[in-house]
Amino acid sequence: MKKYAIGIDLGGRSIKFGLFTEDGELVNKSTVNTRIDDGGKYILSDAYDHILKIMEKHDLNSTNLMGIGMGVPGSVTQQRYVNKAVNLGWDFVDIKEYFDDKLDLKILVENDANVAALGEAWVGVAKDYQSIVMVTLGTGVGGGIIVDGKILSGKHGSGGEIGHMPLLKEPLSRTCGCGNNRCFEQVASATGIENIALDYLFENEEDSILREVENITAKDIFDAFEKNDHAAMNIADQYFSHLARGLAIIAAVVDPEAFVLGGGVSNAGDLLLDNVRTYYEKYCFVNNRDVDIKIAALGNDAGIYGAAKLVL
Amino acid sequence: MKKYAIGIDLGGRSIKFGLFTEDGELVNKSTVNTRIDDGGKYILSDAYDHILKIMEKHDLNSTNLMGIGMGVPGSVTQQRYVNKAVNLGWDFVDIKEYFDDKLDLKILVENDANVAALGEAWVGVAKDYQSIVMVTLGTGVGGGIIVDGKILSGKHGSGGEIGHMPLLKEPLSRTCGCGNNRCFEQVASATGIENIALDYLFENEEDSILREVENITAKDIFDAFEKNDHAAMNIADQYFSHLARGLAIIAAVVDPEAFVLGGGVSNAGDLLLDNVRTYYEKYCFVNNRDVDIKIAALGNDAGIYGAAKLVL
Repeated sequence: MKKYAIGIDLGGRSIKFGLFTEDGELVNKSTVNTRIDDGGKYILSDAYDHILKIMEKHDLNSTNLMGIGMGVPGSVTQQRYVNKAVNLGWDFVDIKEYFDDKLDLKILVENDANVAALGEAWVGVAKDYQSIVMVTLGTGVGGGIIVDGKILSGKHGSGGEIGHMPLLKEPLSRTCGCGNNRCFEQVASATGIENIALDYLFENEEDSILREVENITAKDIFDAFEKNDHAAMNIADQYFSHLARGLAIIAAVVDPEAFVLGGGVSNAGDLLLDNVRTYYEKYCFVNNRDVDIKIAALGNDAGIYGAAKLVL
Repeated sequence: MKKYAIGIDLGGRSIKFGLFTEDGELVNKSTVNTRIDDGGKYILSDAYDHILKIMEKHDLNSTNLMGIGMGVPGSVTQQRYVNKAVNLGWDFVDIKEYFDDKLDLKILVENDANVAALGEAWVGVAKDYQSIVMVTLGTGVGGGIIVDGKILSGKHGSGGEIGHMPLLKEPLSRTCGCGNNRCFEQVASATGIENIALDYLFENEEDSILREVENITAKDIFDAFEKNDHAAMNIADQYFSHLARGLAIIAAVVDPEAFVLGGGVSNAGDLLLDNVRTYYEKYCFVNNRDVDIKIAALGNDAGIYGAAKLVL
């Protein structure tokens, strides 16, 4: 008998569902909108309704469905308790309790960045590694750490919250969403490189393609870099240096086999990899020099893969 | 029948041996000198001779002795291979292979900072925690990370090598033993605070008790701090800030329950704890604010405790 697992990625805009075989084959993918009204109180019932549809459509029951895993954008402890998920409007939610009344199935929950890392380690670019750090370079910087195949969750479920490492000795003039002003994500996220660009163009007189752009994005900067725009190259250089130093710090702490870079900024591909590698080798402890640095392979699906893997 | 384990701490000056019951009671402690001549080739045979003496004296054999654990000042992989232990004169040594020919016992090896952390987590100040980071503030800064009761060894056995996190964006004028010049241990070790003091006294005209001291040590600085010596307070303040930011970074990565501070500097006790805590709370990610920060309890014996615990 074939066995299956459902992986769910609860996002602020949509809830993604993936039905997987135990070998990691994606059988079916579907999405419903996230209703965040009224403190997000419809989210779990909407998810439940959709789970029932999937189970019916694919003849799943407690015998051939090994369980349901879930990734949530917030801190998760004991693979069930969510402590604040701002994007969902949640304060404290016990997800296992909610589903235990309704389904005779294993239900396991983890932070969304952690399950994305688990997904990449299961069938993605990191499938040949046991210990990786996934770094998601989006609006913020998310992180997921896998040690010997297992998520490093931490006491509060905020293991791998690398975006909020106080990377900088001197505070920035801008404040991070977390309230601090020395955070890694303030200089290493997509927003980070955009702010580096704004500051650079304000402080320097230099001509640049970027001066023509209204809302400068990471992509604009990398495009200008590839056209040898001098300002863009200096801006990107600052960014690569910050990002690489953050990776070198993390490497000294957990000594992983590989870093997996995901999120919007990772679309820069080799431009990102080559430049980050150069700075990384300058900053890292000698033992960590041979770490692999790769671009994530599963894109936005990493979450559903990793969520399913939780229960397998 | 009572069961025992032997824990060995291989240091550059002496080899410490501890005989423990499986409950963590220290039955006997002994020491032999470390002979580092000829590439440290006598070290394991000296250790072996002493193990035989302990076994004979305490009537130990492969039935009542559960094994021998060892802490080594170098990177250790697969709990047997030592890759460079400079203080012992070793390049590459397979410790398990050496003993397997001679003893019918479980032999497990780990980095010395890691076993010290394991010792504190077993019967020391951290015995009520499952996940801790031990930070040894000595000539350098050593680190050992315990996650869910297990050592985080890392790919190269250099997990927890926090002394070589590139904490500083701007390079220091001095070079670290590792060849870099942005290392955490350059500002957070005993040597670190001494160098901060030398720089401060050179750059400032200010009167200070410390100007009378020939070779300023961390203790001199903390003693002067407690006499409200203004220069000493500024020097210590820089030190506390660096150390606290390093801890806040590590907390964002692994989200431990507690930090355990050991090594010479930790003799400063509450002066250290209180000041580091103040800066830590300023720098840390909000989720990590309630971490416990404690002074190590086992002192120089942490290594033999943790080494014994490896095989229990």
